[in-house]
Amino acid sequence: MKIGFIGMGIMGSRMAANLLKNEYELSVNIRTKDKARSLLEMGARWAETPAKLGQKVDVLITMLADPEAVYEVTLGKDGFLEALKPGSIWIDCSTVNPSFSEKMASEAAGRNIRFLDAPVMGSRGPAEGGVLVFLVGGVEAVVEACQPYFTAMGRKVIHVGNWGKGSAMKMVFNMLLGVAMQSFSEAMALGRSLGIEPDKLIENLIDSPVTAPFLAGKKEKIEKHQFSADFPLKWMFKDLHLVGLSAFEGGVALPLAGVTKELFALARSNGWGAEDFSAVYKLLNR
Amino acid sequence: MKIGFIGMGIMGSRMAANLLKNEYELSVNIRTKDKARSLLEMGARWAETPAKLGQKVDVLITMLADPEAVYEVTLGKDGFLEALKPGSIWIDCSTVNPSFSEKMASEAAGRNIRFLDAPVMGSRGPAEGGVLVFLVGGVEAVVEACQPYFTAMGRKVIHVGNWGKGSAMKMVFNMLLGVAMQSFSEAMALGRSLGIEPDKLIENLIDSPVTAPFLAGKKEKIEKHQFSADFPLKWMFKDLHLVGLSAFEGGVALPLAGVTKELFALARSNGWGAEDFSAVYKLLNR
Amino acid sequence: MKIGFIGMGIMGSRMAANLLKNEYELSVNIRTKDKARSLLEMGARWAETPAKLGQKVDVLITMLADPEAVYEVTLGKDGFLEALKPGSIWIDCSTVNPSFSEKMASEAAGRNIRFLDAPVMGSRGPAEGGVLVFLVGGVEAVVEACQPYFTAMGRKVIHVGNWGKGSAMKMVFNMLLGVAMQSFSEAMALGRSLGIEPDKLIENLIDSPVTAPFLAGKKEKIEKHQFSADFPLKWMFKDLHLVGLSAFEGGVALPLAGVTKELFALARSNGWGAEDFSAVYKLLNR
Amino acid sequence: MKIGFIGMGIMGSRMAANLLKNEYELSVNIRTKDKARSLLEMGARWAETPAKLGQKVDVLITMLADPEAVYEVTLGKDGFLEALKPGSIWIDCSTVNPSFSEKMASEAAGRNIRFLDAPVMGSRGPAEGGVLVFLVGGVEAVVEACQPYFTAMGRKVIHVGNWGKGSAMKMVFNMLLGVAMQSFSEAMALGRSLGIEPDKLIENLIDSPVTAPFLAGKKEKIEKHQFSADFPLKWMFKDLHLVGLSAFEGGVALPLAGVTKELFALARSNGWGAEDFSAVYKLLNR
Repeated sequence: MKIGFIGMGIMGSRMAANLLKNEYELSVNIRTKDKARSLLEMGARWAETPAKLGQKVDVLITMLADPEAVYEVTLGKDGFLEALKPGSIWIDCSTVNPSFSEKMASEAAGRNIRFLDAPVMGSRGPAEGGVLVFLVGGVEAVVEACQPYFTAMGRKVIHVGNWGKGSAMKMVFNMLLGVAMQSFSEAMALGRSLGIEPDKLIENLIDSPVTAPFLAGKKEKIEKHQFSADFPLKWMFKDLHLVGLSAFEGGVALPLAGVTKELFALARSNGWGAEDFSAVYKLLNR
Repeated sequence: MKIGFIGMGIMGSRMAANLLKNEYELSVNIRTKDKARSLLEMGARWAETPAKLGQKVDVLITMLADPEAVYEVTLGKDGFLEALKPGSIWIDCSTVNPSFSEKMASEAAGRNIRFLDAPVMGSRGPAEGGVLVFLVGGVEAVVEACQPYFTAMGRKVIHVGNWGKGSAMKMVFNMLLGVAMQSFSEAMALGRSLGIEPDKLIENLIDSPVTAPFLAGKKEKIEKHQFSADFPLKWMFKDLHLVGLSAFEGGVALPLAGVTKELFALARSNGWGAEDFSAVYKLLNR
Repeated sequence: MKIGFIGMGIMGSRMAANLLKNEYELSVNIRTKDKARSLLEMGARWAETPAKLGQKVDVLITMLADPEAVYEVTLGKDGFLEALKPGSIWIDCSTVNPSFSEKMASEAAGRNIRFLDAPVMGSRGPAEGGVLVFLVGGVEAVVEACQPYFTAMGRKVIHVGNWGKGSAMKMVFNMLLGVAMQSFSEAMALGRSLGIEPDKLIENLIDSPVTAPFLAGKKEKIEKHQFSADFPLKWMFKDLHLVGLSAFEGGVALPLAGVTKELFALARSNGWGAEDFSAVYKLLNR
Repeated sequence: MKIGFIGMGIMGSRMAANLLKNEYELSVNIRTKDKARSLLEMGARWAETPAKLGQKVDVLITMLADPEAVYEVTLGKDGFLEALKPGSIWIDCSTVNPSFSEKMASEAAGRNIRFLDAPVMGSRGPAEGGVLVFLVGGVEAVVEACQPYFTAMGRKVIHVGNWGKGSAMKMVFNMLLGVAMQSFSEAMALGRSLGIEPDKLIENLIDSPVTAPFLAGKKEKIEKHQFSADFPLKWMFKDLHLVGLSAFEGGVALPLAGVTKELFALARSNGWGAEDFSAVYKLLNR
């Protein structure tokens, strides 16, 4: 099977590399060819446009920043959706709002393309190690057909439901991720202001019943007050914005998620957008 | 050693029972004697007032609802603080704000009473099973002297720091508890509104890297939409209020904790104060 | 000049009627012809589609619910934008986010259509009385050319700036409207809970230096606890959602506006969407 | 009648000066005598302690920072409450929570002292000009007896209800003040981010139906980005904290007031506590 890949960011470049390591024939396209250099050196082929990429592959995987970027490579000028052969598969691993995934599924179905929304849990490290978790929406048979590709890039596939449900689950997870990070930051600020020794504080909070386990992975950043990006703050802000869109569509109130989005907006306007999302910590802890 | 106990609520009655089971000579006092009945049947002795209780014990433990209640039995009419023998120990297991603990420590020290603030982690079940975790503020030697009593009632002692630091740590934990509960409730509301099948949703959220482990213990309540109280919502609301007081004293901003307090206020004004604090779930999930 | 009008809701029907009263030749189109009946009886002409309406008018005014509805009648099937003669004017009075207005301005310019974004301040009453305030974005000369139409429907034109700036100003005003309404509701809830006699409370709050003057117009609804719609709550919720979109595009944090949106979401999910937006009052005041 | 005055801050010193200008015989006390210098030069007499002040006056007025400060001069060491003659009047103009006023009323009544809680609306300017508005709680006859003193310092008396109701009304007003200030700050941030020219923006917002009239008085500070204190931010933060206490006692949820408090906490921790409360503007507008 010939695989195409669009998206060479922190995540995409590592996911594509794992496909190559699993000896898949991989072609790539990206706006600035320079970003694909190391993959090309590893043996990936180059396609001049998304459309040309679409012509030569059986499975096309996208891992892009937001719905607008996905729309551009699919249905924009030289988009791949018209170029894919009927019966091909498009797996969108980008984090987008569920109604966008549903719209894409419908555009794909209209062209006899099989579609999965398959955003991932896990950031830089798990992408590199090939141990991502895929949250998948789509038809069971297609999920099964794609199992080998998921296996090359990840350790687990959660088939959440039909089209859009992978994206829906991702919205839920990232909302929890953002809120938990801000909440932990408040806990540290409160404890420190009350005179608890910071080492003792963090040691008791990490791996406690009241804190999310992922926070253990942020301990070092917080202790060193150094927030190199595994998952950049600006993307978390974008995701919380998509959570807001989704909540509007779903008609639900999300007070904590709403406030958390505003705090990430404040953090970003402080110039921390390229740091790890855990840099929101600095808002209350100088 | 003769031990006195004041406070016969969900927690206190079970903690006192565990002291009896460990064959300590226990005396109790409480405003309405009726609440002490089962302890008296188990062999506890009765004291007519806090002061009379103070006269006959070496160690006095309080487990009461709020700072006002603690103040009343210590320094109010017939309070025990004047009655305790110099050198006695007072352990306050109530959840109070740290500056109150510091004030109590100072009142105790002025009368040669040794003081520990020692609020607990864990609700009804761990209290009954004798596996509470104590968050302790005070002098090391006193913490050591009290180890046997803690062992009778709990499984672990975290000596956080000097006076008030046990209460400080408790503020931090309960803040996280309240925020995580509300946050989980928003996650469920979002996921359900986006059409994820509820069983699948909850199954993927519980024990995930982005949710606090304690939530596994709330799964059944949520699934059955039945919120019998392990830790009543009205106490969580009170605790979040104490968190607010503490943050004011510490001079820190806690946006998520602030909003969470208001949502628990809303839940309480809906008449859910006597249900478990996880009943805040009903605010967004009917 | 021949004028076309699309949008027969609470606002549009009254604005169109005022154009007729000022003896303009008016044609209308709307999805369900029934809604246009009274205007047709007053002398308005009927056009079968937006495109057919576009062919016969010099100035086309739209007053629709949201960006999606505006897009549909302009660039959707049988949309009017292709049908308008070069040099015609399109005035969009709908409340939309500014980037959408800018996109529409650009689509119009590409077809030699002159565009104004001109959302209004004022609800049912001012629409009926012809005393609306128009917040206008666009080129000065076009604003001047349209002055007679604005005068027929309103009492004042604020030319805020170039394309999109009318919509931007409207976002700002409606954000303030929503926050002030919720804030007033909290003030009433607080005052009542503290035992201030409700009549005395409302009398002292209305027309005070700390409350927005528009609230005087909500006094009767609040006193009677009866919230017939001047400006439906569901539209306010939609507008606060557009405010959120705009803030995301502008990169600013709006904590109070964010929370207010969630509270209107809660109010809407309580079934109050068709009531006046002041019905958010009921959330805290039963 | 001999009048005593305790409290020589921004407000108290100006209020006391107006009593002197109205030729009342005035005695004062304050912790640091230096602060009373200009009043002493104007003819005020000095009392060494609150108690000594209490002994020589018929009416005693307090204007202090918070409940703790009021408690100290009344019931603390050398407090005046025991020293006042039966039948004397104590007017507390400090901003305190209503339950504190009720407690003070009860302490006063027990000593046959007539009590009014009478916090004021208006800051530095109105205090100087003698045009404050008094929000009064207490018995009608006492309010009438005190009319001359109120007239010397203010332009209007609002008799809200019995003891504590003046303080309750003040809580409501200051809550609205804080929320409206933050809300205006968000409106400016949003409008500016969307490209509305700042002068045009502020001109359209001030004196609009959707903004509180007091904001006109903040226009210059905002335009010059210079926030000299009429009403210091740290006191607004303290007042919002008292609003939180009051809401807890009243059992109501105040989501916007809650978030606003946290934002003032953030502003204060930025070091802006001594600036005007409108300096919260800087949080979102650099």
